[in-house]
Amino acid sequence: MPDSDALTIWPLSGIGEVQAGDDLVGTIVAAARGRLADGDILVVTSKIVSKAEGRYRPAADRDAAIAEETVRVVAENEAGTVRIVESRLGIVAAAAGVDASNTPDGLILLLPVDPDASARALASGIRSRTGAHVGVIVSDTLGRAWREGQTDCAIGAAGVVVMEDLRGGTDASGRPLAVTLPCVADELAAAGDLVKRKTSGMPVAVVRGRADLVGGLDLPGARSIVRPAERDLFSEGTREAYARGRADGSGG
Amino acid sequence: MPDSDALTIWPLSGIGEVQAGDDLVGTIVAAARGRLADGDILVVTSKIVSKAEGRYRPAADRDAAIAEETVRVVAENEAGTVRIVESRLGIVAAAAGVDASNTPDGLILLLPVDPDASARALASGIRSRTGAHVGVIVSDTLGRAWREGQTDCAIGAAGVVVMEDLRGGTDASGRPLAVTLPCVADELAAAGDLVKRKTSGMPVAVVRGRADLVGGLDLPGARSIVRPAERDLFSEGTREAYARGRADGSGG
Repeated sequence: MPDSDALTIWPLSGIGEVQAGDDLVGTIVAAARGRLADGDILVVTSKIVSKAEGRYRPAADRDAAIAEETVRVVAENEAGTVRIVESRLGIVAAAAGVDASNTPDGLILLLPVDPDASARALASGIRSRTGAHVGVIVSDTLGRAWREGQTDCAIGAAGVVVMEDLRGGTDASGRPLAVTLPCVADELAAAGDLVKRKTSGMPVAVVRGRADLVGGLDLPGARSIVRPAERDLFSEGTREAYARGRADGSGG
Repeated sequence: MPDSDALTIWPLSGIGEVQAGDDLVGTIVAAARGRLADGDILVVTSKIVSKAEGRYRPAADRDAAIAEETVRVVAENEAGTVRIVESRLGIVAAAAGVDASNTPDGLILLLPVDPDASARALASGIRSRTGAHVGVIVSDTLGRAWREGQTDCAIGAAGVVVMEDLRGGTDASGRPLAVTLPCVADELAAAGDLVKRKTSGMPVAVVRGRADLVGGLDLPGARSIVRPAERDLFSEGTREAYARGRADGSGG
């Protein structure tokens, strides 16, 4: 039924509980059951990458773990119950991505040490073991300003274009598309979440139909999606910026 | 090859230039060529909804058009070349969504008057003409804080769940998923963008495989995704909040 330009996205079933030190390439290749093809893009939940990397901390040390991952506090609500921080990865998120769901009892999980490097290792390993020229995105669930809820975004990427640069391209009527820079890596991560489901225990999705986005392992990673704070109009929470201005204004 | 729990997304081809007053339901049903089934979700680019609604303004009146759509200025860069505003729809975006690409020469396009109402009219019309119990999302391309590039998001929705409330649900190990509220409407819009492509002239995508998200036309619309400014930690740009605090601090 779908056209040849259709996208198909399916979850890999049969990936059990990932343990520290597991060969994630082998786990994913086995779960893919010989189905991977050139141009497929795998969306891998960062949680299983962190588990394979053994990024566990005792749940009792949660505050210390968040501090360990935090570069700076971006915003807090008045009650102090919500804290948005910039993590060492440059990602602005609540609790620096430290995660207590889907973890063994008494343990919490930090984000992978270097999600782009993890994605490169997965893409390289899967390419060499299957012969399929695939791209890999490592995804995490992020909140956002101005909109409720969360969407899955790319925190690591390898062998796949993260920004489809249409600047210099033209619209259907031939006029330039001035500032359009679709973050296809985040769109792929979001699409993958629609089949992975958070409660299903299926942490990997395969996206087939955008082979044009798959390329060399030297393509820019997801780190390039992060906007440097100095160029961000929302680098600091409204309350925090107001308080800083007020202190400066009163010479305090 | 994909599992039964796969998602398939395809663009509708053959939708020509949409004119003011066009019967968009008829246009979409014709382009779907009898393929729509219960549980399908259509992602419709807001641009063609605006065109059908005749939301044109002369390009020369762009500043007035943006002002007409703006409730308040949220942030500007120092050069004044970038202005992020809250539109009358509550959506925080550059230029209030006023669009000059893919528009007839000399004209610009405002967002639909009420994208949730437009989505309801489309869902209701498509359901009655095809008998297929479909959901409809009206999408627009939005920038975001902290991350470069844009992703497509839902600015209108009807007959489809916009937030998959997993709060109260449990993770794979049975522990509660505390704060997880995936904005599936935005994830569906993002997934649709991966097949629509901005330069292709294919403004509608069909998503098949998440029939569980399709429901009554009385489900909350995309307006419910908008976080009220009073509950938003980033309701005002950093520069603007700092300047306000500084003025208050100096008693100015």
